[in-house]
This record gives sequence, structure tokens and C-alpha cells, in this order.
Amino acid sequence: WKALPILSSDALSSVAYGTEQILTVLVVAGSMALWYSLPISGAIVGLLFLLILSYRQVIDQYPGGGGAYIVSMDNIGWFAGTIAGASLLVDYTLTVAVSVTAGAAAITSAVPILHDHAVLLSVSFVLLIMILNLRGLRESGTIFAFPTYMFIIGILSLILVGIFNVLKGGIPANVPPVTSHLPEGLTWFLLLRAFSSGCSALTGIEAISNATPTFRPPETKHAARTLALLGVLLATLFAGVSLLAYLYHLTPDPKQTIISQIAEQTFGRTIPYYYVQATTALILILAANTAYSGFPLLASIMAKDKLMPRMFMTRGDRLNFSNGIIALSIAAIVLILAFGGDIDRLIPLYAIGVFTSFTLAQLGMVRRWLKHKPTGWRTKLAINATGAVVCFIVLMIFAITKFHEGAWLIVLVIPMFILLFSQIYRHYQGIADELRLDRSTEKPVTQDQLLIIPVGGVNRVVRNTISYAKSLEVEAVALYIAFEKEDQEKMKNKWAEWDPGIPLEVTYSPYRSVIQPLLDFVDQMKARNKNCQITVLIPQFIPRRWWHNLLHNQTALMIRFILLWKRDVVIGTVPFHLKK
Amino acid sequence: WKALPILSSDALSSVAYGTEQILTVLVVAGSMALWYSLPISGAIVGLLFLLILSYRQVIDQYPGGGGAYIVSMDNIGWFAGTIAGASLLVDYTLTVAVSVTAGAAAITSAVPILHDHAVLLSVSFVLLIMILNLRGLRESGTIFAFPTYMFIIGILSLILVGIFNVLKGGIPANVPPVTSHLPEGLTWFLLLRAFSSGCSALTGIEAISNATPTFRPPETKHAARTLALLGVLLATLFAGVSLLAYLYHLTPDPKQTIISQIAEQTFGRTIPYYYVQATTALILILAANTAYSGFPLLASIMAKDKLMPRMFMTRGDRLNFSNGIIALSIAAIVLILAFGGDIDRLIPLYAIGVFTSFTLAQLGMVRRWLKHKPTGWRTKLAINATGAVVCFIVLMIFAITKFHEGAWLIVLVIPMFILLFSQIYRHYQGIADELRLDRSTEKPVTQDQLLIIPVGGVNRVVRNTISYAKSLEVEAVALYIAFEKEDQEKMKNKWAEWDPGIPLEVTYSPYRSVIQPLLDFVDQMKARNKNCQITVLIPQFIPRRWWHNLLHNQTALMIRFILLWKRDVVIGTVPFHLKK
Ligand SMILES: [K+]
Ligand SMILES: [K+]
Ligand SMILES: [K+]
Ligand SMILES: [K+]
Ligand SMILES: [K+]
Ligand SMILES: [K+]
Repeated sequence: WKALPILSSDALSSVAYGTEQILTVLVVAGSMALWYSLPISGAIVGLLFLLILSYRQVIDQYPGGGGAYIVSMDNIGWFAGTIAGASLLVDYTLTVAVSVTAGAAAITSAVPILHDHAVLLSVSFVLLIMILNLRGLRESGTIFAFPTYMFIIGILSLILVGIFNVLKGGIPANVPPVTSHLPEGLTWFLLLRAFSSGCSALTGIEAISNATPTFRPPETKHAARTLALLGVLLATLFAGVSLLAYLYHLTPDPKQTIISQIAEQTFGRTIPYYYVQATTALILILAANTAYSGFPLLASIMAKDKLMPRMFMTRGDRLNFSNGIIALSIAAIVLILAFGGDIDRLIPLYAIGVFTSFTLAQLGMVRRWLKHKPTGWRTKLAINATGAVVCFIVLMIFAITKFHEGAWLIVLVIPMFILLFSQIYRHYQGIADELRLDRSTEKPVTQDQLLIIPVGGVNRVVRNTISYAKSLEVEAVALYIAFEKEDQEKMKNKWAEWDPGIPLEVTYSPYRSVIQPLLDFVDQMKARNKNCQITVLIPQFIPRRWWHNLLHNQTALMIRFILLWKRDVVIGTVPFHLKK
Repeated sequence: WKALPILSSDALSSVAYGTEQILTVLVVAGSMALWYSLPISGAIVGLLFLLILSYRQVIDQYPGGGGAYIVSMDNIGWFAGTIAGASLLVDYTLTVAVSVTAGAAAITSAVPILHDHAVLLSVSFVLLIMILNLRGLRESGTIFAFPTYMFIIGILSLILVGIFNVLKGGIPANVPPVTSHLPEGLTWFLLLRAFSSGCSALTGIEAISNATPTFRPPETKHAARTLALLGVLLATLFAGVSLLAYLYHLTPDPKQTIISQIAEQTFGRTIPYYYVQATTALILILAANTAYSGFPLLASIMAKDKLMPRMFMTRGDRLNFSNGIIALSIAAIVLILAFGGDIDRLIPLYAIGVFTSFTLAQLGMVRRWLKHKPTGWRTKLAINATGAVVCFIVLMIFAITKFHEGAWLIVLVIPMFILLFSQIYRHYQGIADELRLDRSTEKPVTQDQLLIIPVGGVNRVVRNTISYAKSLEVEAVALYIAFEKEDQEKMKNKWAEWDPGIPLEVTYSPYRSVIQPLLDFVDQMKARNKNCQITVLIPQFIPRRWWHNLLHNQTALMIRFILLWKRDVVIGTVPFHLKK
């Protein structure tokens, strides 16, 4: 069973920061407020089970893999689909940014000397994952299964030993008391904020429904079972960590994560402590890696739907898959640097992205049940509708309680994405219209031809190009651009002596420019032969090693680019392969 | 008179860091050692006058502008020329890195809140200067003359008011005593190190001899006079700053430059203080800017000599001048980041680069006098020989006393440059040999032709390309690569219906790859027609706005690149200009 560990790493790894996010908010209201982390964690576990139930139904209906993008495109429409697409792109980017940042925090907690270099560490992880993926790393490798199991074993042991310690020694005296009324300073606003922060523990459970086809057949059954198991595991780990954090009366510390504090108090800085920190870092990096299969795939699907640039369309050459990998890495690094590697500020963006896609996926399922009405659709509808409403409420809580801490950025970014998508769509659609051809009337038509061959002297590259021009049996003229006055006569004499059978024109360019004289010559030839199609043949030698291109050909590339852009000429590149 | 201020900014701006560099070394030996900054400054002023005398003779002999590169290539030989070229490239890069770093230090001294962002500030300055230069900023602008005059006025006033204050109030009690024996901890090694650090005050005086042709005629007379004036000014400012630093008993402070400390003690944090800091920052940025005309020019000269890639060769299009500007900026930014914006570690590299070029220029002049022996050559020889020997001794002092602080880097980098230059030279020379043609025997030869046109469907871009192919009246075949099995038949039917008069071949590529099937088809055609030259015609539409290219054409570019590289085919790009 390798599907569980790899796909679940995204969801399970959130245990590394979920509890901490709750405490970070509550601690503002003083230590009396920390008790509330327990009911909040309880509510989050409840939400978790609701989401698991809802997503099991997505899996059942979309055995081909149903991300929020496909479900909403399919059932709601174009606009909802683009919102889902935008939120998923944000989700993937922040999965990378948040996971590597949390991974770096796990490491710097254990090795304090690295604390000042956490951002560098995070960026290095992104670059490492990027390079591995560009080189064609396959997720299916068995080694990828280990970190997840090791992490589960580590955190479970931590919880068991921790609770045993507490029972043996009694609850420590300094545990914050359980109170029935809200302590001073703890407002409902703060409680909701803590709840929404804690919902970051739910990010990543969408991954399994996206990847249903990667399971062994019967896929939907295996995927659904994996999802259920994931729910139980995640609930246990998250609730256990929250409970221990409360029992140990821990507060967030910028130099040490909550997991690290729990492990230190439980084991001391011994081998089990380092085991917990190392496996936490590993599963977080693995979680970041899952986005590297999801993002390029989604970008490719959206490119096919003409919402993303064609360069993201997946091809067998893997070339375009690489564009997705690089784009994801750049976006994640920019986010990490822009937020100074501060995970507390990245998480609101992440959670909003994820809950937007949750809401839209559930809403899409609601529409689907209403349309198709299969047997038992009422129960199914009820589950997805509850899921949609609850997710939407959580989303609103986010947007309101976290608006100043970055939520406004998402409120800005998602409409920008949608605008961009629709511009891209209109662009491709417009071109398709312009290129459409009536097969019965629009036949090819022929035209007179003229070849222009810019030559830099008399040498074998030029000879090669002249040979080609003569083989085509079309009218041709060579053009020499002299930088010095005296070069003009010299070249004419050489050409006459060589006598290649094609006339030579010479112009003088005192400012050593080549592009403008060439454009002028093209215009002059065009004026002389009105209905003629001009081809510029560029003699180009191909060096033996690709990096030798750094030493050549910039001018040829520039000429090609500008001529294609500014004039209606065909550009032919006639290669001469160097042997040395 | 605008030549003085602009060309002199490089040299005069060194006052901002020269004295500080001496004190930074001496302070290690305790406050008793600070007195030695005065005799060291005296020795540096002596060296300055020797260099001025020597360079006046360079100006006299090279009215066309004589950098160390030209003088050594001309008089010593290829090897010395490449060393001079390498050291000048290093010199220009470090002029930028050191000047903007010192400029940032001048600003953060006055505005302490910016202290933590000094590196960011330095990098921003480089980017700003780069952009202005790419946009064609001309140095001749009158506004560029002001900062230098304002700086001279500022520092002169500072020195006068400072000395007046000291005389009025008597020398402050805490001035370190003048001693005749070396205080404990002050070794000869340390003294020599302080001297070599102080020689950073001499960097930049080579700029005038490089730029002789920019003076009004008679150029050599004006340039020589400017150089003399510069010498007097630089000596006054440098000696004055050193004297005041001693009288005020100042020690280097990482948060405030020596100039800032002097200005603060003299004026308090009043308007004159801010005037001194602002003009210091301005002249330093102006100094960095001078390297932006020198570096691309030198790179262009060296490219003509086949020592640098052809892309640096200056053309009227300014395109290749831009390459020099960008290369210089990247190199300077890398240096600033690699050294964490620490000017004390950049200066040894800078000074070594500059003194290497000083030494070689003087040595070149010595060889020149010995060869030509004009009237009065003995005196001239004596001056340049003394200059060469003294510069060489300073260089050795540098290399030895600063070896561990980065001098080893230069000892590594300059030979690497020379190796690179000779590789580039051999590469270009080898290609010239391979392309040479015997005009009497090697005439053009013709060959059978075959056109291959990859088509993605039946549309107007394809029609445009087929029209072109038919106009050439050469055998042609269209190739369609299907990604889905059923597309094969569909396309054949469409083609038959359209009937363009050129046969269609269809292949199936299950992995959605286009490049490999195309390569295979080329090989297949080549095997069928042994002596045939194959041309691949690529249908390409040209969007109306250049940035629309981001949405298209990546595949076409890739095909073009790989086909040219891997097969002996001509690539024709047939443009279809979009109207919308
Ligand atoms: K999770
Ligand atoms: K995720
Ligand atoms: K996650
Ligand atoms: K100087
Ligand atoms: K310089
Ligand atoms: K300088």
C-alpha cells in the first residue's frame, strides 16, 4: 500500500502546524484562554469527518479524478470553474511554501544554530524539490512511502508516552484551569479566529480525490477506504497533539515549534526527540513534493481548456511539464521571500485557497445530485450541502477575521486570476476564429519569389547558403553590409573573382548596424517587385557544442526575430555544421 | 569644464573610504597605533604624485585613449595584454560594487533606520544605474558635473571648519600620543597592511588616461592639465580627512563611516552634515556610473581582438553595448551579495585589480621608451620605471598582507580569465580556419530538394505555408502528427476535401511528443532520397503584440532549435501575421 502514505503526506503533515496556529491566536488573550484550544480542536475534528464524508462522494462520482476545478466546471459552470482553478493554483503554491517553511522550522527547532538561516533553508528545499522533479523523479518510488509511516509512528508514540507521563506524574500544576465563562480579553472574534487558524490542519485532504486514478482497481473503493483511514489517523494525531500541548501548558515560541516543545518535554533532547523532528521535516518536504505532480497536471488541463498559456500543455517531451514545475517553484520562492518565511502569515492565504476549493467542490456535487438524482440522492445531497454550507461559513470566518493579515491579498489575487484566464481564453478563441478556413474555397495560391542572402564575406558558410539558393532555382541576390568604406570595393572584387552565379549588392553602414540596412534593403526589393514574396536566407554555422552558441549567432537570432516581426518575409536558416 | 568632474568622480570618491581603510587595520593594534595613519597617508600622497606623473606620459603617448590593456598589448605582448584586460574587467566590476556599497554606507550613516537594508540599497543602486544606462543615458549631461563640485566644496569646508575648531578649542585631550617607537602589537606587517589598504584611495586615477579622446582639443594638453588638478585635489581631500580623523581620535564604527563621524563632530546633525553625506553618496554613485561606459567599451575592444565573446562587440544597434551593461551589473550584484555588502572585504580585490593595471601600464611605457627613444626619453623612462617598480611593490604588499582576506581570489580569478580568453581566441581562430575557402576552386554546387511541412490541422497558417511551398516549385510533403488514433482518419479526410496539391503523411504519437516523430520522419525521407537536401518549413503565426508570444510558439522554437542541432536540414519559418 503505497498510495496512502504518498497522497496522505499533504494532509497528515498539517499536524505539524495546525495546533500551533490555534495557540498562536489564543495566547493573545492570556494563559486562561489556552483551555479553549480543546473545544476548538474538537470542532475541527468534526469538520474533518464532514469533509471526509463529502469527498468520498466526489471519489465515487469522479473515478477519473475530480479536483474542485473539474467538479465545478462540470456541474456549475465556467465562472465557478475559473474560481476553483485559481484557488487550486493558489493552494498548490502555498502547499509548497507552507510545507517547506514548516519543514525548515522543524529543523531549526532541533538545531538552533540554523535559526537565522530558516529562509535560506526553505528556499533551498524548494530548489532541491524542483531539480529532482525536473530530472523526472517519480513519486511512485517505494522510498517515498517510508517518511509518512515513520511520521505516524513517531507522533503516535509521542502522544502515548506523553499521556502516560502525565498520568504517572499527575497533570502538572501549571495547567491552565478549565473555566466556563470567557476569560477577560478572549472575545468571540478571537475564538473564531483561532478556529479558522486551526482549520489549516485540514489542508491537503483534497489530494486523494484529485488522484483517484492512481489507485489499484477498483480505484474508487481503494480511494474511499484510504480517505476514511486518513480521516481517522489525522483526527487522532491532531487531537493528540492539541491535548498534549494543553496538558504541558505550552505557548508558541518563535524559536521552537509546538511539536518540538512536546517532544522535548516528553523525551528530552535524546534520539526519540530527533526522530520526531526529522520525520516531521521529511513528511513536510514530501507534502511539498505532492504539489509538483498536482500543479503541472492542473495547469495542463486548464491549458487544454484555453485558460492557461499553451506552454503548460503536457506533451510526451516533458518539456511543458517542466514549465509547470518551474513556475510553481518561482511562485513558492517569491511567496517565501515576500513573507520573510513567516508561516503565520502564509497560513491564512493557504487556508483560504483550500476552503474556496472545498466549498466549490461541494457546491458542484450539490448541483450534480439535483440534476441526476440517482438512487439515495437525498442523503448524498444532504451531506454535500452541509459540507458546502459549513465550508462557506469557515471561508467567511477566514475572510473576516484574517482580512488584515493577508486575506485581502487572496481577495485581490483570485479576481486577477479570473481576469487573466478570460483574457487568455479570448485571445486563443480570437486566433482560432481568425485562422479558420473554408476548405472548399480557400486553396493555396502561388506567388513570385525572391531570395535575399546577407553575406559577411566569402567563406564556406556563405558557399553553403549560395548552393542552397541556387538549388531552389529562384531569383536570388546577396547583400553585403560594409562597416568601413574601403571594404565595399574589396568585397566586390572577391565576389567577382569567386563568381558564384548570384549577383551581389553592397551597402555601407557607418554605425556598424546590420538590422536597419537589411530592413531597408528588404523594403527596396519589395518596392521593386510588388507582388513578390521575399525570403531572407541566413547562413548560420552550428558549433559542435551547444554552449559555443554563447560565442556566436546572437546577431542572426536578432535579425530573424526582428525581420519576422516587422516585415512579411520568410526566414530560412541554412546550417553549416562545424566539425571542430 | 565638464570633463574634470565626470571623469574625476571615480578617483575623488575614493576619499570616502581611503582613510577608513587605514584606520580599520591600525585599530587592531590599539589606540596608540592610530598615530601612524598620518605617515601612511603621507606615503600614499607621495605615491599619488608619482602615479600622476606617470599617467601624464601615458596621455601624451596615447591621445586615442590608452588603458592598461592597449598600452600593454601594444608594447609588451599578448600575455601581458590579457592580464591587463582581466585586471581592468575586475577593476570596473569592483568600481561598481565598492562605490555603491560605500554610497549605501554614507546613506545609512545619516539615516540609521536603513542600516539593516544596506545590501538591498546597494543592489538597488546597481539596478538603477543599469536601467538608466540601458535606456541610453549620456554621461555628457551637465547635471553630472554638479555632484563632483558639490562634493569637493563639502569636504573642503568640512576640513577647514574642522581644523579651525581644533585650533580654537585646542587639540582634544584624548588625541593618541605621537610615539617614536612602534607600540606593542603594531608590527611591520600590520603597518604595511594599513598602507596597502590606504592605497584604495588611489583607485580611479586611471580613468582619465582611458578617456583622453573625450576632452576638447588639444586633447592631450587638456587631459594632462585635468590630471594634474585632480592630483592636487585628491591629495588635499585625502590628507585633510586623514588629519581630521586623527585629531578627532576616531575609530571605525560599523554603523557610521569615518566621513560621517567627522561631519557629525564638526557640524552636529545639522544641514551641513546632511549635505556632506548626500554629496558623498552622489559622487560615489556617479563613480559607479563611470564604469558603465568603460566596461562595455573595453569588452568591445577585446571582442574585436577575439578575446571576449562576439556578443560584446559594439554595434550601431546598441544591442551589444547592452550586453556589456548587463554583464557588468550582474557581476557587481553577485560580488555585493557574495561579500554580504562588506566593503572591507571588497576593497582588497579592488585595489589588487587596479594596481595590476597600474603596474602593467607603467611597464608598457618603459618598454615603449626603450624601443622608440624619443628626445628626453631618459627622464621619461626613469619616471615610468619608478612607477612600475613602486606599483609592483605595492601589489606584492597587497598579495602578501591581504592573501587570506580575499587576495587569493584574484590570484585565482586572473589566471582563469586568461585561460578563458585564450580558449575564446582559439575557438574563433579555429572557426576562421575551418570556414576559409579557395575562391578559385570551391564554387557553389546544387542539390535535389525536398520540403517537409509539419501541419497541425487545416487552417490559414497552414494554407499560407503550403502556398509558399508550391511557389518554390520543389517536391514537398506535409506531415501531420496525431495524438489520438481517431484523429488520423479525420485529418486525411479534411486534407482530401481541401485538396491543396501536396501529399499528406500521417503519423501517430501516443505520448503527445512532436519532436521525435518529426526527427524520425526526416530520417525516413533522407533514407529514401539519399542525395537530397531537406528543408522543414514551419508555419508560424506572428501575434500583434510581442508579449503574446508568451502564449504561443514555444514548440516551434524548440523544433527549430533541435532540428538545426541534430540534423542537417534547413529550417524555414513562414510567418502569418495576425490582424487581431
Ligand atoms: K491536513
Ligand atoms: K494542499
Ligand atoms: K497541507
Ligand atoms: K581615488
Ligand atoms: K576604477
Ligand atoms: K574609486
